[in-house]
Amino acid sequence: MDYAGFFRSELDALRESGNYRHFAELERRCGAFPRAQFHGGPAADEVTIWCSNDYLGMGQHPDVLAAMHEALDTTGAGAGGTRNISGTTHAHVLLEAELADLHGKEAALLFTSGYVSNWATLGTLGARIPGLTILSDSLNHASMIEGIRHSRADRVIWAHNDLADLEAKLAALPLDAPKLIAFESVYSMDGDIAPIAAICDLAERYNAMTYLDEVHAVGLYGPRGGGIAEREGLMDRITVIEGTLGKAFGVMGGYIAASADLCDFIRSHASGFIFTTALPPAVAAGALASVRHLKASGAERAAHQDRVANLRARLDEIGLPHQENPSHIIPVMVGCPVKCKYITDRLLADYGIYIQPINYPTVPKGTERLRITPSPVHSAAQTDQLVGALEELWAQCQLARLPMAAQ
Amino acid sequence: MDYAGFFRSELDALRESGNYRHFAELERRCGAFPRAQFHGGPAADEVTIWCSNDYLGMGQHPDVLAAMHEALDTTGAGAGGTRNISGTTHAHVLLEAELADLHGKEAALLFTSGYVSNWATLGTLGARIPGLTILSDSLNHASMIEGIRHSRADRVIWAHNDLADLEAKLAALPLDAPKLIAFESVYSMDGDIAPIAAICDLAERYNAMTYLDEVHAVGLYGPRGGGIAEREGLMDRITVIEGTLGKAFGVMGGYIAASADLCDFIRSHASGFIFTTALPPAVAAGALASVRHLKASGAERAAHQDRVANLRARLDEIGLPHQENPSHIIPVMVGCPVKCKYITDRLLADYGIYIQPINYPTVPKGTERLRITPSPVHSAAQTDQLVGALEELWAQCQLARLPMAAQ
Repeated sequence: MDYAGFFRSELDALRESGNYRHFAELERRCGAFPRAQFHGGPAADEVTIWCSNDYLGMGQHPDVLAAMHEALDTTGAGAGGTRNISGTTHAHVLLEAELADLHGKEAALLFTSGYVSNWATLGTLGARIPGLTILSDSLNHASMIEGIRHSRADRVIWAHNDLADLEAKLAALPLDAPKLIAFESVYSMDGDIAPIAAICDLAERYNAMTYLDEVHAVGLYGPRGGGIAEREGLMDRITVIEGTLGKAFGVMGGYIAASADLCDFIRSHASGFIFTTALPPAVAAGALASVRHLKASGAERAAHQDRVANLRARLDEIGLPHQENPSHIIPVMVGCPVKCKYITDRLLADYGIYIQPINYPTVPKGTERLRITPSPVHSAAQTDQLVGALEELWAQCQLARLPMAAQ
Repeated sequence: MDYAGFFRSELDALRESGNYRHFAELERRCGAFPRAQFHGGPAADEVTIWCSNDYLGMGQHPDVLAAMHEALDTTGAGAGGTRNISGTTHAHVLLEAELADLHGKEAALLFTSGYVSNWATLGTLGARIPGLTILSDSLNHASMIEGIRHSRADRVIWAHNDLADLEAKLAALPLDAPKLIAFESVYSMDGDIAPIAAICDLAERYNAMTYLDEVHAVGLYGPRGGGIAEREGLMDRITVIEGTLGKAFGVMGGYIAASADLCDFIRSHASGFIFTTALPPAVAAGALASVRHLKASGAERAAHQDRVANLRARLDEIGLPHQENPSHIIPVMVGCPVKCKYITDRLLADYGIYIQPINYPTVPKGTERLRITPSPVHSAAQTDQLVGALEELWAQCQLARLPMAAQ
């Protein structure tokens, strides 16, 4: 076989299909985020980022940075080993206790990323619980899908957020057979929110465990930033809450919060937890500071919701179609991959605005979009600039607008 | 099903089998490593770590810490997104270029960990190359095994470092069928080293690609720290070199180095690369400083080899059985899980020496051991103390010693 030829032709095919991804090279400006320097293009030197998952700007919060600086000074750079072999540091233990408390659970378990936490936890539960069936929402994240696939457990996919379909699929299984319902609270690309209480009702009725991915909600919702389940008073009804330290908390890493025994079971059996170097103590310390700050302070959450509502209203004023949803994610619908890419190229080159186009296969064909994530650190002037730029490009691309009176 | 009862009884079974793992909670002392504070036990407050994979003490190197402090100040804590959506920072691009250069390859690709780099790369190659057979060394790391398993490619396991067995298994496959030989350079638990040149010969004869995990070698071997393949002048004969930034480089993260097209192929298709938040810029900056330092400086490597040779000689003097190997890993063989745990408990409680016992299933039953990793930052006094403690405990446990004259 001609290996080099294979890789080349596969990449050519990707380019021809329009699905080849170009990464924008950025240098964030700490203290001035969402501003960043853009490297390696003919575009404006300084750009404003409107698609970050550092939803609250906690990546530049003084408490977070101070904790990381201090941990670097006192403990150094890396953990130096797996959690089992010299890599469990005091910072990891403190952070796990803080996360357990955040979600009202007995315990929490850290992973190197949210991806790994989903993959390793679902992979281990599916592989180790004899006869487990995992009932998976059809729009679950890739990390959940891969974990379920890796487990080789029986998998049943239910229609996205469709309670009737979920119930039909639960009812088709023996009542005493082990089951796990895996779903998310806020879905990343559409920003819609699962009917968590009703799913818990079904789980109880049909004797199923629940696994809730709150990566786009932790830090952002609930009186202490515990997520949608906290806001709705449902944390105690969820078996496993999974979250990330890399989005609203602004650092890196993932975790689960659950019963002490369940966390210990995953700790003891999950290959992706056991055989990997622990997070650097400074990363754990930064995340700890972020979680603690957002537990006590609601100001960032309030400002965040305010900016989101404001941008929606501004888009409505000029009739730009954005998908309605009850979260902080604003999908501005373009519906054409070529125009979507064109608009984001022009935003970058002519306006110094960076928004990554979201095309197939991340979203279905025909639903290509700009996924806009306003944050408390976006100024009124930056919002004005974004809305003005979108208005001009919408006209230039002859894209449909909604009747403004209907807004 | 009684889920809580299931988790409880599984954990009870693990405890009864003696395989339940207790994590030692440490607080590394930056600047004084291998010293650390031990938390949460009746043991000595301050301990010396003798089992870290921060092999050279780069986790406290001033260049690494300065680079991380600076990156925190200039860019903030987290990357804020996946590599595709706002998470590619200048630090990632610089580090990938540096790693490609380190290994003499066209390109490199960063992952959040060495585990993920193995899992995602082997998983993607195995799933995406039609008809690929992966020939995997029988002692490959869990991350490689899980990646191969996840790919669902045909897998052939060859006896560890056994060229005749590898050749027989290659010869049994059609010459033009796609094949990948996956192996490590330095094996973590035994410290033995693969016959890389001979494996490359076989790969060429039978038209196979090669995938070499150098996680226990990068930074440590070769004139610039490129690993065993660099030391032996073989880097250009390896298709994919995989390494970590979390061991000798002292920080966190994993990578592959390979042709530009192969890296781009993995970049474009690997779920575990695409759908995860990028490493924090400060982590990338710290790793970059570490790689650059160890490219230019051989002092740490020389001191490391010296400390390893010295400790081996000291163990020989008192007849303590350690597995001979050509690497820096010193497996001191106990051969009994109960005594292995007892010795490490006593080392911690009575001597302030932390070494994690290595028992089944990490190593085969009957080969339980202390895995000791001397580093340039271990002092002569610390070595004296370790050797004295081991001598006393060996006598106390009535463990066999080798005839000293034979050493």
